[in-house]
Amino acid sequence: MLRVAVIGAGRIGKVHAAAVAAHPQARLVAVCDPIGTGAADLAAIYEAKAYAEAADLFADSDVDAVIIGSPTPLHAQQVLAAARAGKAVLVEKPVAGDVDEARALEAELATFEHPPVMVGFQRRYDPSIRRAKALADAGELGTIEQVTIVARDPGPPPAEYVAASGGLFKDMTIHDFDEARFFIGDIVEVSAFGQNVLPELAETGDFDAAMVLLRGAGGAVATITNNRRCVTGYDQRLEVHGSLGSAVMDNWRETTLSVNTRDASGVRQPYLDFFLERYAAAYSNELSAFIDAINSGTEVSPTVADGVAALLVAQAAEESARTGRTVRLDIGGTPDYGG
Amino acid sequence: MLRVAVIGAGRIGKVHAAAVAAHPQARLVAVCDPIGTGAADLAAIYEAKAYAEAADLFADSDVDAVIIGSPTPLHAQQVLAAARAGKAVLVEKPVAGDVDEARALEAELATFEHPPVMVGFQRRYDPSIRRAKALADAGELGTIEQVTIVARDPGPPPAEYVAASGGLFKDMTIHDFDEARFFIGDIVEVSAFGQNVLPELAETGDFDAAMVLLRGAGGAVATITNNRRCVTGYDQRLEVHGSLGSAVMDNWRETTLSVNTRDASGVRQPYLDFFLERYAAAYSNELSAFIDAINSGTEVSPTVADGVAALLVAQAAEESARTGRTVRLDIGGTPDYGG
Amino acid sequence: MLRVAVIGAGRIGKVHAAAVAAHPQARLVAVCDPIGTGAADLAAIYEAKAYAEAADLFADSDVDAVIIGSPTPLHAQQVLAAARAGKAVLVEKPVAGDVDEARALEAELATFEHPPVMVGFQRRYDPSIRRAKALADAGELGTIEQVTIVARDPGPPPAEYVAASGGLFKDMTIHDFDEARFFIGDIVEVSAFGQNVLPELAETGDFDAAMVLLRGAGGAVATITNNRRCVTGYDQRLEVHGSLGSAVMDNWRETTLSVNTRDASGVRQPYLDFFLERYAAAYSNELSAFIDAINSGTEVSPTVADGVAALLVAQAAEESARTGRTVRLDIGGTPDYGG
Amino acid sequence: MLRVAVIGAGRIGKVHAAAVAAHPQARLVAVCDPIGTGAADLAAIYEAKAYAEAADLFADSDVDAVIIGSPTPLHAQQVLAAARAGKAVLVEKPVAGDVDEARALEAELATFEHPPVMVGFQRRYDPSIRRAKALADAGELGTIEQVTIVARDPGPPPAEYVAASGGLFKDMTIHDFDEARFFIGDIVEVSAFGQNVLPELAETGDFDAAMVLLRGAGGAVATITNNRRCVTGYDQRLEVHGSLGSAVMDNWRETTLSVNTRDASGVRQPYLDFFLERYAAAYSNELSAFIDAINSGTEVSPTVADGVAALLVAQAAEESARTGRTVRLDIGGTPDYGG
Repeated sequence: MLRVAVIGAGRIGKVHAAAVAAHPQARLVAVCDPIGTGAADLAAIYEAKAYAEAADLFADSDVDAVIIGSPTPLHAQQVLAAARAGKAVLVEKPVAGDVDEARALEAELATFEHPPVMVGFQRRYDPSIRRAKALADAGELGTIEQVTIVARDPGPPPAEYVAASGGLFKDMTIHDFDEARFFIGDIVEVSAFGQNVLPELAETGDFDAAMVLLRGAGGAVATITNNRRCVTGYDQRLEVHGSLGSAVMDNWRETTLSVNTRDASGVRQPYLDFFLERYAAAYSNELSAFIDAINSGTEVSPTVADGVAALLVAQAAEESARTGRTVRLDIGGTPDYGG
Repeated sequence: MLRVAVIGAGRIGKVHAAAVAAHPQARLVAVCDPIGTGAADLAAIYEAKAYAEAADLFADSDVDAVIIGSPTPLHAQQVLAAARAGKAVLVEKPVAGDVDEARALEAELATFEHPPVMVGFQRRYDPSIRRAKALADAGELGTIEQVTIVARDPGPPPAEYVAASGGLFKDMTIHDFDEARFFIGDIVEVSAFGQNVLPELAETGDFDAAMVLLRGAGGAVATITNNRRCVTGYDQRLEVHGSLGSAVMDNWRETTLSVNTRDASGVRQPYLDFFLERYAAAYSNELSAFIDAINSGTEVSPTVADGVAALLVAQAAEESARTGRTVRLDIGGTPDYGG
Repeated sequence: MLRVAVIGAGRIGKVHAAAVAAHPQARLVAVCDPIGTGAADLAAIYEAKAYAEAADLFADSDVDAVIIGSPTPLHAQQVLAAARAGKAVLVEKPVAGDVDEARALEAELATFEHPPVMVGFQRRYDPSIRRAKALADAGELGTIEQVTIVARDPGPPPAEYVAASGGLFKDMTIHDFDEARFFIGDIVEVSAFGQNVLPELAETGDFDAAMVLLRGAGGAVATITNNRRCVTGYDQRLEVHGSLGSAVMDNWRETTLSVNTRDASGVRQPYLDFFLERYAAAYSNELSAFIDAINSGTEVSPTVADGVAALLVAQAAEESARTGRTVRLDIGGTPDYGG
Repeated sequence: MLRVAVIGAGRIGKVHAAAVAAHPQARLVAVCDPIGTGAADLAAIYEAKAYAEAADLFADSDVDAVIIGSPTPLHAQQVLAAARAGKAVLVEKPVAGDVDEARALEAELATFEHPPVMVGFQRRYDPSIRRAKALADAGELGTIEQVTIVARDPGPPPAEYVAASGGLFKDMTIHDFDEARFFIGDIVEVSAFGQNVLPELAETGDFDAAMVLLRGAGGAVATITNNRRCVTGYDQRLEVHGSLGSAVMDNWRETTLSVNTRDASGVRQPYLDFFLERYAAAYSNELSAFIDAINSGTEVSPTVADGVAALLVAQAAEESARTGRTVRLDIGGTPDYGG
């Protein structure tokens, strides 16, 4: 049984705590959160230890692995401290607050031996996305040419959250950037149109919707459509189009029921709402992959390098949306602004 | 160009007249209807002759073929007269008012040479049903085991129509009986539950809804669900289940648009309403098959024998629904009431 | 925490054991199975006690409730013994081996005070079926007129299982009979066509497929289509048609992915296979309802009376399929064979 | 009866000729094509006159209206000549070979009185797209925020056609540009990524696939995805997402049949292929709108100004794809290259 601790007793921390508790190969042994009774409350549910200080947690020899769901600015330093303490790490996205910090983390981690460090792009473990990837890898879709990703949240987070989020591209689109990379590889060109559609977020200075074009190193292109608000629920779709076929991921509903009336036919419920429901299987599979990587030495995916790459694309998208220019990315990493 | 006349200037007569007028290999030359200005009005649209008497029409040497859409009690005698006059005939369902009359017609037609006589079960020419049949015949579904037919009208005809219709099974289900025979062959056993769900038809003495079980000579079984009222439109579905797979026919809508809102997702329009819209392609294909049978000697389908067989099943269903017994049919045709 | 024991360490017993272990308000305390190491093996996983004798289990004061997943012939006596011992009971379908035994059980249970006894028709707790029921109860579909149930297993059980199963109608269709009763109430008329489509079951003397017509006391009718073999997976569908609309339950697939190629579009995976996957949520919800009934005195559904009623319909269906007659059921319970 | 002539006896000319011949308010009176026996052959089918010279056609007083389906370089001059001759004009897209020529045409047409001139963006008359537009205009989707258009041809035209086509954006995407304008209004910003995925078109110097971002004057954005090759057929989809909901247009198939087998479920046929099949209703509705504009003075849509605007966006997309810059458009029309 892998002994796992969770840092952060907020929404995502609770998801991970529950996933660990339910997993046959893991046991939740500790929860860490500096604020109020968060750690204690969450720990109590699972009869785990509660910590206020991450340092104390890292010093706990009863902990084999930590799942980091703390605020983004803490990610890089906690990953590093945990790795130095010999803990395996699963860190929520983004891996760090910006590209420089992420690269510094990546460089530092390369200087010493440590257990696996995995980044929490859980979509790679969603059964539908995995099946699309498997079909693509098996060549059943031919050469991948065009990818379409739609990701809309049911409703916006509070303005304070948005203001501190690092921006739409790092906070929300980062999942889509990793998903696009999953299918079309390294991104070499980015063009983004930001939008402001929600009055309640107007003061944040951040975009609340966007459409993005990406070009992969191999020539495939992708569009991403984001919106902080989709009244029908959490809108999560993917289309992978290749020379021999395409794979299309639809939204989930709670039931398969459709209703027919005088006015309409085929009426289904709104989409599953929100990511905890939609990606429940993904979080569970992600945890299994993390445990396998620790126990069996299977490959970690996504890696810290993937986390860096996604941040790089996010930064380029922000740049493009602000300047109205297409941004080119040297795969090595140096952005080369077009024109 | 085949010179075609239409008997009956009512709803179905107008459908056939328009189909003939639009067909590249046919020309509408005459319309016959004894009531009011029906024949003249319809004929005027297509610059055709108008007749009040069918006998006069049959005597017209400019007519190669007649499509009979007159009231059911006239079908058998008009088919016979037309065939004797050397006209090809496409007669609307049912081929006659009852089994005895239909059999007498069939026997009489066997006594002399005449052009093709075809019965208007147009569903056999619907692209979806044809494709299901083609898949079944090609063996792609394996051995056919179970067929499910749903046929619901958007709303009931007037009570007077129903009272004179010969009953639900002969008037409405007759299409489903032929459709079932199309997939599972001759029917040997029938059990029917009639229903009365519409107050406005309560005085007619007829059922306005029904569920029927059929067993084919080869062992496959079918259910038919009928209802004179389906608020979402004309509900026409089919499922053919075999040992290797199944084929399922869904309803058509006017567009492919679906709408997603706060309350619902995937909202489509009601089903196409009514048979003229739903079976537009079927009527056109039926006419082409009729013309081919005349011009090229291709096989007629459905035949008068098919019309007789459907009536026989309808009669058995009525008997079953009235007596509460399963009715067995000798394929030769003599009903043998179970028990 | 409710202390629950499971009788029967077979397939369904394992389902219930896992559901209990995962339920936040229940704890698996014992497993009982007389054969080999079944009880011990299953108990070991959950650190529960193992019993070979049900009597010993019923005498265990650490057990609050038992879930009976033993062979059908043992159901009635174990339900009675457990109830007498003051245990709450959730018994798998059918509640007894035949109608007489089930009625005797029902009568006996009425003679003394005991905790809730619930029958395991888990479909009543499936989210899709529940939603259809909720829509129907809320009047959104109007007066329910016609119900269509399709239930096909992916493949047949071994011939030995079938031979000892009590017959298709009691073993498999019994779920559909309860489902039909859920929507159209007490059944007053039954007509069934049995089929034999599987050579490997030909020697069992049992039907391996069937189509059934049911009429409810209120006038609504239902068809049930069963097949021991559906190559595409576990085919579980429902359609509830009323005067104002209909609700249609489709099958589930593992993902929402559809694939488009040169030959086809919209290609989805086979249906979820088998009932453990398809009805996972139903089993979990059923357990919650059972626990609520025990803890909070909420109504038990389905009751032993529901179990008796379903058996009565099963018996009538068998009679109808064997004799070719429609069987009428006095709601009070005395079958009155038609004709 | 409107007397209509068709210029161009190629693929699109034949479509229009057939539509005119079938229309109850129009009659095909002449066909014009300078090459070989094209005009004569097509005219013979409909018993119409054949012309080799457009000038002769324009001089024919028996012609009320002309539909121009000639090569693009001839469009502007023929539109002008027809209008000067007092004929109503429906001209295929693009309205002219480039923006300058189109603007000159627009300016010249403004100098004299003439019957309606309409541009053949037939999608505005597709029932699904019209319904999406009606929903949007009725406010049922709220404020339109994001539009997604996918348009993929089943396979590429010959390399010679592509080389002379004026480029992907003017030849193919032009329809999508008009469709985007239909929903989000005047375009003010364009970013395009061109692709080369088809070896057989590599020598043409043209893109054979593209993804485009557009921003409308009101702030809504759109993506367009084009590909000269989609193996599943003619892939024509649209999604209009607003603050209150979204409307999604799926592809059509020839039948509603879906097939379930051991390997897959829900298997449908490939998409309708190609535009003649997919947009049959659109061409018919477009002709009706043209006739109505002539007969009843209803508004022409799309106008020559719409044709100019679509060309302007196409030119900007080409510029963006070639330079890697986002191109801004002054709504008045002067392009202002970003950066």
